[in-house]
Amino acid sequence: MKFEQPVTVDWMADFLGATIEGNKSDLITGINEIHKVEKGDLVFVDHPKYYDKCIQSDADFIIINQSTSFPPDKTLFIVDQPFEAYLKIVQHFRPFTETKEPVSSTLVVGQGSYIAPNVYIGKNVVIGKNCRIHPNVTIMDHVTIGDNVVIQAGSIIGSDAFYYNTKKNRSVWYKRMESCGGVIIEDDVEIGAGCTIDRGVTHNTVIGRGSKFDNMVHIGHDTVIGKNCLIAAQVGIAGATTLEDGVVLWGQVGVSKTLTIGENAVVLAQSGVPSSLAGNKTYFGYPAEDALSKKKELVWIKRIPEIWEKLKDKL
Amino acid sequence: MKFEQPVTVDWMADFLGATIEGNKSDLITGINEIHKVEKGDLVFVDHPKYYDKCIQSDADFIIINQSTSFPPDKTLFIVDQPFEAYLKIVQHFRPFTETKEPVSSTLVVGQGSYIAPNVYIGKNVVIGKNCRIHPNVTIMDHVTIGDNVVIQAGSIIGSDAFYYNTKKNRSVWYKRMESCGGVIIEDDVEIGAGCTIDRGVTHNTVIGRGSKFDNMVHIGHDTVIGKNCLIAAQVGIAGATTLEDGVVLWGQVGVSKTLTIGENAVVLAQSGVPSSLAGNKTYFGYPAEDALSKKKELVWIKRIPEIWEKLKDKL
Amino acid sequence: MKFEQPVTVDWMADFLGATIEGNKSDLITGINEIHKVEKGDLVFVDHPKYYDKCIQSDADFIIINQSTSFPPDKTLFIVDQPFEAYLKIVQHFRPFTETKEPVSSTLVVGQGSYIAPNVYIGKNVVIGKNCRIHPNVTIMDHVTIGDNVVIQAGSIIGSDAFYYNTKKNRSVWYKRMESCGGVIIEDDVEIGAGCTIDRGVTHNTVIGRGSKFDNMVHIGHDTVIGKNCLIAAQVGIAGATTLEDGVVLWGQVGVSKTLTIGENAVVLAQSGVPSSLAGNKTYFGYPAEDALSKKKELVWIKRIPEIWEKLKDKL
Repeated sequence: MKFEQPVTVDWMADFLGATIEGNKSDLITGINEIHKVEKGDLVFVDHPKYYDKCIQSDADFIIINQSTSFPPDKTLFIVDQPFEAYLKIVQHFRPFTETKEPVSSTLVVGQGSYIAPNVYIGKNVVIGKNCRIHPNVTIMDHVTIGDNVVIQAGSIIGSDAFYYNTKKNRSVWYKRMESCGGVIIEDDVEIGAGCTIDRGVTHNTVIGRGSKFDNMVHIGHDTVIGKNCLIAAQVGIAGATTLEDGVVLWGQVGVSKTLTIGENAVVLAQSGVPSSLAGNKTYFGYPAEDALSKKKELVWIKRIPEIWEKLKDKL
Repeated sequence: MKFEQPVTVDWMADFLGATIEGNKSDLITGINEIHKVEKGDLVFVDHPKYYDKCIQSDADFIIINQSTSFPPDKTLFIVDQPFEAYLKIVQHFRPFTETKEPVSSTLVVGQGSYIAPNVYIGKNVVIGKNCRIHPNVTIMDHVTIGDNVVIQAGSIIGSDAFYYNTKKNRSVWYKRMESCGGVIIEDDVEIGAGCTIDRGVTHNTVIGRGSKFDNMVHIGHDTVIGKNCLIAAQVGIAGATTLEDGVVLWGQVGVSKTLTIGENAVVLAQSGVPSSLAGNKTYFGYPAEDALSKKKELVWIKRIPEIWEKLKDKL
Repeated sequence: MKFEQPVTVDWMADFLGATIEGNKSDLITGINEIHKVEKGDLVFVDHPKYYDKCIQSDADFIIINQSTSFPPDKTLFIVDQPFEAYLKIVQHFRPFTETKEPVSSTLVVGQGSYIAPNVYIGKNVVIGKNCRIHPNVTIMDHVTIGDNVVIQAGSIIGSDAFYYNTKKNRSVWYKRMESCGGVIIEDDVEIGAGCTIDRGVTHNTVIGRGSKFDNMVHIGHDTVIGKNCLIAAQVGIAGATTLEDGVVLWGQVGVSKTLTIGENAVVLAQSGVPSSLAGNKTYFGYPAEDALSKKKELVWIKRIPEIWEKLKDKL
């Protein structure tokens, strides 16, 4: 999330009650989570395990719970509770606000688009031309939809991320990381019925041009789906993952977080993808591997009793 | 989909800008996709790979992109782009029309039926007697529901098929095949919460008498579920598949398209069904096979290290 | 379900047209299904296979289809059709009633709670302080929600159980067991988008304090989720199961009914849990077993061809 106006280091230190170390002269342009960080962004880190990753990222500004070494052009904001400080910023710059009307008066809709009855549309939503938004769809705040997009009944665009700050010494272990990102749905995308697409935690979830989803597809926060991808029913894709163009996922496939599936890869039904996959190949099983090899494994499993029968007399 | 009035071959050729070959005297009674075609129907084919299947089907009328050999009682309509011609027919005979009211004034409801608040009901819907349609349900156009049917909250009946015309030389690879079929839900069916049942592409998706679905069940277009089937939560069944009577699918089972599961077959939880299954047996695993054999495989897998230990000294 | 006023044995026998055997002096305080039964409760049993379990349970009152031996302090109500008698009681004490208003006038909401547009809320619902109920959520009757609870868009709380009385000699094999229980969602719980949580058949489904659900999670009737559990997207948990505190289920896990997962257990993505699991361990696969051992099995499967190559020459 970019701030509408960049803010000074002094303003931020004052707002957070933080001690400043390092560069005080640059302006902070926004807040971001570590997978999506850009120059000018502020991030937070509250565990020494992640200090290095954070300090070596593109983030220029870091909220942290103790001093540590860092490049002189960066800025540390030292506070006792970095996560709470981060939340304070989100709540200040993009506060949760109640909505009274089913369709926000801020909605911008292009010519020829149809919005069915019983649809909810939140604030800061843009819908392009010749779209069909079917009944009982929910479009939350900060969603941008291109032209010729179809969203079938009951789908939910822009729900909050499943992303928590964990501390097992609290009575409530998991505290919500408030989402402040959005969703971008490009032209010619079609979303089936009963799908859920979470918005970015600080950035955008993106569905690329011409991609088509069957029913009950779940897309996690900050995930980027390429162009002309085909995603069958009941597929789930966790957060901050990338599907390159032309990827095909068949029914009930599960994909883990922060990985990449290369262009034109095909993943067969019910497979599980725990780590990145190269493009232009077909995958199967858990963990998803080359489909032919994996299917041969099924044949070899069937041969175990026969192998044992043949060999046991040699003992 | 049957036309309200049959049309002549000449009318259709004129409407499509097509060249006619073959029989010009019969009337065209409707349009259908290849899995559901009946006498009098018009189908389309745009790839030589499928010419034979199409010409040998029950279809009397075929939209095709070049001349080929065919029985003399059939009719070819030759056009450059058969898929686009097909879409033109659908859009002419069953155009997408916008709806302004949450419950269509064309709704027919039987005595004793309850329709909760926040329900959407489209055009050409019939609901029988003593039904309960729970809140936030979406019933799209062309759905017929029998007596004593329960549809729990948030379910979507009659969403459009996940069915696309694919051409990878276009910038948008996948073009929607507009659905013009419907859904038939017979007496005493109960649908759980958050289910999605797609309508037929040209024909009907059917849920047979007395069948019961748990929550989040997905049923693809043109699929036919028999009587007294029991389908547990999060099962997905792809398009144009048939479940005979009394089939039981346990939780998270996935079933592929255009196959048949025989009567009283039971498929255990999380199994995957890529091809047809005979009735009156219990299945497990991927690919779903006789449950006992498949569970024995799990035992044999556990024995591999022991087999290796016993045999390796013989090398 | 507890009756508002306890009823006498004579009243019940008269209401059901039942013959009484045993103790006539105690009052019946409610009705329950066998997994949840407490002292003073009435249960039903219609198959000799379950007579013993029923009679040895805490139930003091039993609707049964024939006389059998039982402890003298209990009471049998003998009727031809115990299931139908049970339904008659549910329909009398907690009848299904139609609702005309999207949000019931009986709703009690705490300070600072936000209820979005297009939400449905049934009868006997209590919502605590500082909750967010997002658009298109459905909250059915008899749901109690604590403080600081978030329910994201399109989720359904309190849908009816997937629980049927089966008799294959009827034309409709499965008859609905009418649910009369509720749902309790404790403080600091967050439910993702598009989830479904069934109410108890006679008791309550419970989501413990501080537990967090991702999108499209399904929870069956009478299931009890402990405190600080984390449940990822597309997980399904069947009825009357218990998750102790701190359990983590990753994406697309399936859990069977009436089992227990011990505290702090972790079940990895896509695993299937057919029977109870001890706490403080990590599990994987189907059936879910110790994750390390199970992942070693995947390595051994890959070694089968190599083992065969090495050994076949010894034949």
